[in-house]
Amino acid sequence: MSLGQIQIYTGSGKGKTTAALGLIIRALGYKMKVGIIYFDKGGNFYNERKILDKLNVDYQVFGLRRMNKKGFRFKNKKGDFKEAQKGLKCIKKYYQKDLDLLILDEINTTSKTKLLKEKDIKEIIKKKPHKLELILTGRYCPDKIIALADLVTEMKEIKHYLNKGLNARPGIDY
Amino acid sequence: MSLGQIQIYTGSGKGKTTAALGLIIRALGYKMKVGIIYFDKGGNFYNERKILDKLNVDYQVFGLRRMNKKGFRFKNKKGDFKEAQKGLKCIKKYYQKDLDLLILDEINTTSKTKLLKEKDIKEIIKKKPHKLELILTGRYCPDKIIALADLVTEMKEIKHYLNKGLNARPGIDY
Repeated sequence: MSLGQIQIYTGSGKGKTTAALGLIIRALGYKMKVGIIYFDKGGNFYNERKILDKLNVDYQVFGLRRMNKKGFRFKNKKGDFKEAQKGLKCIKKYYQKDLDLLILDEINTTSKTKLLKEKDIKEIIKKKPHKLELILTGRYCPDKIIALADLVTEMKEIKHYLNKGLNARPGIDY
Repeated sequence: MSLGQIQIYTGSGKGKTTAALGLIIRALGYKMKVGIIYFDKGGNFYNERKILDKLNVDYQVFGLRRMNKKGFRFKNKKGDFKEAQKGLKCIKKYYQKDLDLLILDEINTTSKTKLLKEKDIKEIIKKKPHKLELILTGRYCPDKIIALADLVTEMKEIKHYLNKGLNARPGIDY
Protein backbone atom coordinates (compact mmCIF):
# COMPACT_ATOMS: atom_id res chain seq x y z
CA MET A 1 0.00 0.00 0.00
CA SER A 2 1.26 3.43 -0.97
CA LEU A 3 1.95 5.81 1.91
CA GLY A 4 0.13 8.66 0.16
CA GLN A 5 -3.46 7.88 -0.84
CA ILE A 6 -5.44 8.67 -3.99
CA GLN A 7 -8.47 10.86 -3.26
CA ILE A 8 -11.19 11.72 -5.77
CA TYR A 9 -13.86 14.41 -5.46
CA THR A 10 -16.45 14.14 -8.22
CA GLY A 11 -20.18 14.68 -8.84
CA SER A 12 -22.16 17.71 -9.93
CA GLY A 13 -22.60 19.41 -6.55
CA LYS A 14 -20.66 22.39 -5.26
CA GLY A 15 -17.62 21.59 -3.11
CA LYS A 16 -15.02 19.72 -5.14
CA THR A 17 -12.42 22.39 -5.83
CA THR A 18 -13.26 24.07 -2.53
CA ALA A 19 -12.64 20.81 -0.62
CA ALA A 20 -9.28 20.48 -2.37
CA LEU A 21 -8.48 24.07 -1.37
CA GLY A 22 -9.35 23.20 2.22
CA LEU A 23 -7.01 20.20 2.08
CA ILE A 24 -4.20 22.54 1.01
CA ILE A 25 -4.81 24.73 4.07
CA ARG A 26 -4.83 21.75 6.42
CA ALA A 27 -1.67 20.29 4.88
CA LEU A 28 0.11 23.66 5.10
CA GLY A 29 -0.81 23.77 8.79
CA TYR A 30 1.08 20.49 9.20
CA LYS A 31 4.01 21.95 7.27
CA MET A 32 3.48 19.63 4.32
CA LYS A 33 4.88 20.52 0.93
CA VAL A 34 1.93 21.05 -1.41
CA GLY A 35 1.21 21.78 -5.07
CA ILE A 36 -1.79 22.35 -7.34
CA ILE A 37 -2.11 21.90 -11.08
CA TYR A 38 -5.27 23.45 -12.49
CA PHE A 39 -6.63 21.87 -15.67
CA ASP A 40 -8.93 23.80 -17.94
CA LYS A 41 -9.17 26.66 -15.48
CA GLY A 42 -7.38 29.54 -17.15
CA GLY A 43 -8.24 33.13 -16.41
CA ASN A 44 -7.37 35.40 -13.54
CA PHE A 45 -10.76 35.74 -11.87
CA TYR A 46 -10.33 33.00 -9.26
CA ASN A 47 -10.19 34.88 -5.99
CA GLU A 48 -8.81 31.94 -3.99
CA ARG A 49 -5.55 32.21 -5.92
CA LYS A 50 -4.77 35.54 -4.28
CA ILE A 51 -4.59 33.75 -0.93
CA LEU A 52 -2.63 30.85 -2.43
CA ASP A 53 -0.11 33.46 -3.62
CA LYS A 54 0.01 34.97 -0.16
CA LEU A 55 0.71 31.52 1.32
CA ASN A 56 3.37 30.81 -1.34
CA VAL A 57 1.52 27.76 -2.64
CA ASP A 58 3.25 26.26 -5.67
CA TYR A 59 0.60 26.05 -8.42
CA GLN A 60 0.33 26.11 -12.21
CA VAL A 61 -2.70 26.94 -14.31
CA PHE A 62 -3.58 25.45 -17.70
CA GLY A 63 -6.52 26.03 -20.04
CA LEU A 64 -7.96 28.93 -22.01
CA ARG A 65 -11.28 28.70 -20.22
CA ARG A 66 -12.90 32.06 -19.61
CA MET A 67 -15.74 32.82 -17.25
CA ASN A 68 -19.28 32.67 -18.53
CA LYS A 69 -22.13 33.80 -16.33
CA LYS A 70 -23.63 30.34 -15.93
CA GLY A 71 -20.38 28.63 -15.02
CA PHE A 72 -19.56 25.53 -17.05
CA ARG A 73 -18.93 24.86 -20.72
CA PHE A 74 -17.64 21.74 -22.41
CA LYS A 75 -16.87 23.04 -25.87
CA ASN A 76 -13.13 23.25 -26.16
CA LYS A 77 -11.10 25.50 -28.34
CA LYS A 78 -8.05 24.26 -30.18
CA GLY A 79 -5.68 25.82 -27.66
CA ASP A 80 -7.28 23.91 -24.78
CA PHE A 81 -5.86 20.61 -26.04
CA LYS A 82 -2.36 22.05 -26.11
CA GLU A 83 -2.86 23.42 -22.62
CA ALA A 84 -4.00 20.03 -21.29
CA GLN A 85 -0.91 18.40 -22.76
CA LYS A 86 1.23 21.01 -21.04
CA GLY A 87 -0.60 20.25 -17.79
CA LEU A 88 0.16 16.56 -18.20
CA LYS A 89 3.87 17.29 -18.62
CA CYS A 90 3.70 19.58 -15.61
CA ILE A 91 2.48 16.70 -13.40
CA LYS A 92 5.64 14.77 -14.22
CA LYS A 93 7.68 17.83 -13.23
CA TYR A 94 5.77 18.13 -9.95
CA TYR A 95 6.43 14.42 -9.26
CA GLN A 96 10.12 15.37 -9.01
CA LYS A 97 9.48 18.03 -6.37
CA ASP A 98 9.22 15.73 -3.34
CA LEU A 99 5.71 17.02 -2.50
CA ASP A 100 3.49 15.56 0.22
CA LEU A 101 0.20 16.60 -1.41
CA LEU A 102 -0.64 17.37 -5.04
CA ILE A 103 -4.02 18.49 -6.34
CA LEU A 104 -4.96 17.89 -9.97
CA ASP A 105 -7.92 20.22 -10.16
CA GLU A 106 -10.60 19.43 -12.81
CA ILE A 107 -8.55 16.56 -14.21
CA ASN A 108 -11.55 14.18 -13.86
CA THR A 109 -13.50 16.23 -16.38
CA THR A 110 -10.79 16.03 -19.05
CA SER A 111 -11.82 12.49 -20.06
CA LYS A 112 -15.36 13.61 -20.81
CA THR A 113 -14.19 16.70 -22.66
CA LYS A 114 -11.55 14.65 -24.49
CA LEU A 115 -8.76 16.99 -23.43
CA LEU A 116 -6.90 14.01 -21.97
CA LYS A 117 -7.26 10.27 -22.46
CA GLU A 118 -8.34 7.98 -19.67
CA LYS A 119 -5.08 6.10 -20.06
CA ASP A 120 -3.10 9.31 -19.47
CA ILE A 121 -4.81 9.72 -16.10
CA LYS A 122 -4.34 6.05 -15.23
CA GLU A 123 -0.64 6.37 -15.93
CA ILE A 124 -0.41 9.49 -13.77
CA ILE A 125 -1.97 7.58 -10.88
CA LYS A 126 0.23 4.55 -11.34
CA LYS A 127 3.43 6.60 -11.46
CA LYS A 128 2.63 8.64 -8.36
CA PRO A 129 5.56 8.87 -5.91
CA HIS A 130 5.12 6.57 -2.88
CA LYS A 131 4.67 9.26 -0.23
CA LEU A 132 2.55 11.66 -2.32
CA GLU A 133 -1.14 12.14 -1.48
CA LEU A 134 -2.82 12.75 -4.85
CA ILE A 135 -6.15 14.58 -5.08
CA LEU A 136 -8.19 14.50 -8.31
CA THR A 137 -11.21 16.78 -8.66
CA GLY A 138 -13.89 17.35 -11.30
CA ARG A 139 -17.21 15.98 -12.51
CA TYR A 140 -17.61 12.88 -14.62
CA CYS A 141 -14.79 10.85 -13.11
CA PRO A 142 -14.61 7.64 -15.18
CA ASP A 143 -15.30 4.35 -13.35
CA LYS A 144 -11.88 3.00 -14.23
CA ILE A 145 -10.24 5.93 -12.46
CA ILE A 146 -12.55 5.54 -9.45
CA ALA A 147 -11.42 1.90 -9.27
CA LEU A 148 -7.83 3.05 -8.65
CA ALA A 149 -8.66 5.46 -5.81
CA ASP A 150 -8.49 4.95 -2.04
CA LEU A 151 -11.10 7.58 -1.21
CA VAL A 152 -13.94 8.78 -3.41
CA THR A 153 -16.55 11.35 -2.41
CA GLU A 154 -19.39 12.15 -4.78
CA MET A 155 -20.51 15.73 -4.25
CA LYS A 156 -24.18 15.10 -4.92
CA GLU A 157 -26.22 18.13 -5.81
CA ILE A 158 -29.41 18.15 -3.73
CA LYS A 159 -30.15 21.83 -4.39
CA HIS A 160 -28.23 24.64 -6.06
CA TYR A 161 -28.93 28.35 -6.09
CA LEU A 162 -27.80 28.50 -9.72
CA ASN A 163 -31.03 26.65 -10.53
CA LYS A 164 -33.13 29.43 -9.09
CA GLY A 165 -31.61 31.97 -11.43
CA LEU A 166 -28.67 33.19 -9.40
CA ASN A 167 -25.38 33.69 -11.22
CA ALA A 168 -22.00 32.48 -10.01
CA ARG A 169 -20.69 35.01 -7.47
CA PRO A 170 -17.16 36.25 -6.82
CA GLY A 171 -15.79 35.26 -3.40
CA ILE A 172 -18.29 32.39 -3.22
CA ASP A 173 -18.14 30.48 -6.51
CA TYR A 174 -14.82 31.72 -7.93
CA MET B 1 -34.67 36.67 -1.58
CA SER B 2 -31.81 37.19 0.83
CA LEU B 3 -28.60 38.55 -0.68
CA GLY B 4 -26.49 35.99 1.17
CA GLN B 5 -27.49 32.37 0.58
CA ILE B 6 -27.78 29.39 2.94
CA GLN B 7 -25.40 26.58 1.99
CA ILE B 8 -25.39 23.11 3.54
CA TYR B 9 -22.71 20.44 3.25
CA THR B 10 -23.84 17.13 4.70
CA GLY B 11 -23.47 13.37 4.13
CA SER B 12 -20.94 10.85 5.42
CA GLY B 13 -18.18 11.38 2.85
CA LYS B 14 -14.98 13.36 3.38
CA GLY B 15 -15.05 16.97 2.23
CA LYS B 16 -17.58 18.93 4.29
CA THR B 17 -15.37 20.89 6.68
CA THR B 18 -12.65 21.05 4.04
CA ALA B 19 -15.06 22.57 1.50
CA ALA B 20 -16.05 25.18 4.08
CA LEU B 21 -12.36 25.91 4.66
CA GLY B 22 -11.92 26.36 0.91
CA LEU B 23 -14.84 28.79 0.85
CA ILE B 24 -13.08 30.85 3.53
CA ILE B 25 -9.97 31.08 1.35
CA ARG B 26 -11.96 32.13 -1.70
CA ALA B 27 -13.93 34.73 0.25
CA LEU B 28 -10.73 36.14 1.78
CA GLY B 29 -9.34 36.48 -1.75
CA TYR B 30 -12.30 38.70 -2.55
CA LYS B 31 -11.67 40.68 0.66
CA MET B 32 -14.85 39.44 2.28
CA LYS B 33 -15.22 39.56 6.04
CA VAL B 34 -15.45 35.96 7.27
CA GLY B 35 -15.99 34.01 10.47
CA ILE B 36 -16.17 30.40 11.64
CA ILE B 37 -17.88 28.90 14.66
CA TYR B 38 -16.83 25.32 15.34
CA PHE B 39 -19.36 23.15 17.14
CA ASP B 40 -18.27 20.04 18.99
CA LYS B 41 -14.73 20.35 17.67
CA GLY B 42 -12.64 21.20 20.69
CA GLY B 43 -8.99 20.28 20.96
CA ASN B 44 -5.91 21.82 19.49
CA PHE B 45 -4.93 19.16 16.94
CA TYR B 46 -6.65 20.70 13.90
CA ASN B 47 -3.75 21.73 11.70
CA GLU B 48 -5.85 23.98 9.44
CA ARG B 49 -6.35 26.37 12.35
CA LYS B 50 -2.66 27.30 12.27
CA ILE B 51 -3.20 28.75 8.80
CA LEU B 52 -6.49 30.39 9.83
CA ASP B 53 -4.51 32.11 12.60
CA LYS B 54 -1.89 33.22 10.10
CA LEU B 55 -4.64 34.68 7.89
CA ASN B 56 -6.27 36.37 10.93
CA VAL B 57 -9.55 34.51 10.42
CA ASP B 58 -12.05 35.29 13.18
CA TYR B 59 -13.13 31.93 14.62
CA GLN B 60 -14.36 30.42 17.88
CA VAL B 61 -14.23 26.79 18.97
CA PHE B 62 -16.78 25.00 21.16
CA GLY B 63 -16.97 21.41 22.41
CA LEU B 64 -14.88 19.11 24.57
CA ARG B 65 -14.42 16.60 21.79
CA ARG B 66 -11.03 14.95 21.82
CA MET B 67 -9.43 13.01 19.02
CA ASN B 68 -9.93 9.29 18.89
CA LYS B 69 -8.04 7.23 16.34
CA LYS B 70 -11.10 6.31 14.33
CA GLY B 71 -12.50 9.81 14.13
CA PHE B 72 -16.11 10.22 15.18
CA ARG B 73 -18.03 9.65 18.38
CA PHE B 74 -21.56 10.61 19.26
CA LYS B 75 -21.54 10.06 23.00
CA ASN B 76 -21.49 13.46 24.59
CA LYS B 77 -20.21 14.42 27.96
CA LYS B 78 -22.06 16.81 30.20
CA GLY B 79 -19.79 19.72 29.31
CA ASP B 80 -20.56 19.34 25.61
CA PHE B 81 -24.12 20.59 26.10
CA LYS B 82 -22.88 23.69 27.84
CA GLU B 83 -20.39 24.24 25.06
CA ALA B 84 -23.09 23.94 22.38
CA GLN B 85 -25.19 26.53 24.18
CA LYS B 86 -22.19 28.84 24.27
CA GLY B 87 -21.76 28.26 20.54
CA LEU B 88 -25.38 29.20 19.94
CA LYS B 89 -24.91 32.46 21.82
CA CYS B 90 -21.73 33.08 19.88
CA ILE B 91 -23.66 32.96 16.58
CA LYS B 92 -25.82 35.82 17.74
CA LYS B 93 -22.66 37.76 18.57
CA TYR B 94 -21.21 37.03 15.12
CA TYR B 95 -24.47 38.23 13.53
CA GLN B 96 -23.58 41.69 14.88
CA LYS B 97 -20.16 41.70 13.22
CA ASP B 98 -21.28 42.69 9.70
CA LEU B 99 -19.70 39.54 8.20
CA ASP B 100 -20.08 38.49 4.55
CA LEU B 101 -19.58 34.77 5.22
CA LEU B 102 -20.08 32.71 8.37
CA ILE B 103 -19.40 28.99 8.72
CA LEU B 104 -21.18 26.97 11.40
CA ASP B 105 -19.00 23.90 11.31
CA GLU B 106 -20.60 20.61 12.47
CA ILE B 107 -23.81 22.33 13.45
CA ASN B 108 -25.85 19.88 11.34
CA THR B 109 -24.76 17.01 13.56
CA THR B 110 -25.90 18.70 16.76
CA SER B 111 -29.56 17.74 16.14
CA LYS B 112 -28.68 14.06 15.95
CA THR B 113 -26.42 14.25 19.00
CA LYS B 114 -29.06 16.33 20.82
CA LEU B 115 -26.56 19.08 21.64
CA LEU B 116 -28.90 21.59 20.01
CA LYS B 117 -32.57 21.45 19.09
CA GLU B 118 -33.74 21.58 15.50
CA LYS B 119 -35.73 24.69 16.35
CA ASP B 120 -32.54 26.44 17.57
CA ILE B 121 -30.97 25.90 14.15
CA LYS B 122 -34.13 26.98 12.34
CA GLU B 123 -34.15 30.19 14.32
CA ILE B 124 -30.49 30.82 13.53
CA ILE B 125 -31.25 30.49 9.83
CA LYS B 126 -34.32 32.69 9.99
CA LYS B 127 -32.49 35.45 11.87
CA LYS B 128 -29.50 35.53 9.54
CA PRO B 129 -28.52 39.08 8.45
CA HIS B 130 -29.61 39.88 4.89
CA LYS B 131 -26.17 40.06 3.27
CA LEU B 132 -24.59 37.15 5.18
CA GLU B 133 -23.77 33.91 3.34
CA LEU B 134 -24.31 31.18 5.93
CA ILE B 135 -22.60 27.79 5.60
CA LEU B 136 -23.72 24.82 7.71
CA THR B 137 -21.64 21.64 7.73
CA GLY B 138 -21.93 18.21 9.32
CA ARG B 139 -23.57 14.82 8.81
CA TYR B 140 -27.20 14.06 9.50
CA CYS B 141 -28.66 17.39 8.47
CA PRO B 142 -32.39 17.20 9.31
CA ASP B 143 -34.83 17.47 6.37
CA LYS B 144 -36.48 20.52 7.86
CA ILE B 145 -33.16 22.36 7.85
CA ILE B 146 -32.45 21.23 4.27
CA ALA B 147 -35.82 22.69 3.30
CA LEU B 148 -34.60 26.15 4.37
CA ALA B 149 -31.35 26.08 2.37
CA ASP B 150 -30.54 27.53 -1.05
CA LEU B 151 -27.73 25.09 -1.80
CA VAL B 152 -27.28 21.58 -0.45
CA THR B 153 -24.48 19.21 -1.37
CA GLU B 154 -24.47 15.70 0.00
CA MET B 155 -20.91 14.46 0.33
CA LYS B 156 -21.63 10.86 -0.54
CA GLU B 157 -19.04 8.35 0.54
CA ILE B 158 -18.25 6.05 -2.38
CA LYS B 159 -15.00 4.77 -0.85
CA HIS B 160 -12.98 5.76 2.21
CA TYR B 161 -9.47 4.73 3.20
CA LEU B 162 -10.59 4.57 6.84
CA ASN B 163 -12.53 1.44 5.84
CA LYS B 164 -9.37 -0.32 4.76
CA GLY B 165 -7.83 0.09 8.20
CA LEU B 166 -6.06 3.40 7.79
CA ASN B 167 -6.29 5.85 10.69
CA ALA B 168 -7.09 9.54 10.38
CA ARG B 169 -3.87 11.35 9.45
CA PRO B 170 -2.57 14.78 10.49
CA GLY B 171 -2.36 17.27 7.62
CA ILE B 172 -4.94 15.26 5.67
CA ASP B 173 -7.86 14.50 7.99
CA TYR B 174 -7.26 17.02 10.77
